[in-house]
Amino acid sequence: MLKAKIFVQLKASVLDPQGKAVTNSLHKLGYQSVTETRISKYIEVTFNSDDETATRNEVEQICNNLLANPNTESYHYELVKEN
Amino acid sequence: MLKAKIFVQLKASVLDPQGKAVTNSLHKLGYQSVTETRISKYIEVTFNSDDETATRNEVEQICNNLLANPNTESYHYELVKEN
Repeated sequence: MLKAKIFVQLKASVLDPQGKAVTNSLHKLGYQSVTETRISKYIEVTFNSDDETATRNEVEQICNNLLANPNTESYHYELVKEN
Repeated sequence: MLKAKIFVQLKASVLDPQGKAVTNSLHKLGYQSVTETRISKYIEVTFNSDDETATRNEVEQICNNLLANPNTESYHYELVKEN
């Protein structure tokens, strides 16, 4: 079994309105030292396979075709063995 | 500057319908070796402070009161120094 731990994040140049809303809420709640909040997706995909090369290939296809919007988001991932 | 890297995840016992939908889509796209998908939030909060103890305290309050739903979600975080 392999597990892909995937982070899908808005590109740094893209405004994160959800993050901005959280920052504003935190300021209203009194957390004045917060300067920025960025909200991303963290996705764990488990594969019933031990073939790392083939699984890496699949993870990249999955990210490019389903999980990340290439116009506004970037992704990175690590692959770990699971028992 | 300190940055909190916060993971907010559904508890293992809670059904993740969004993850289930992604698993189903992946099967339809031909990725039959995928057995499970869990979707979580990854949130980076930047603090204009170098006081680790006070910031840890604030991060925990923020998670408990705003970012995580204690009924269905758990969180963990790490605090890193930023320049």
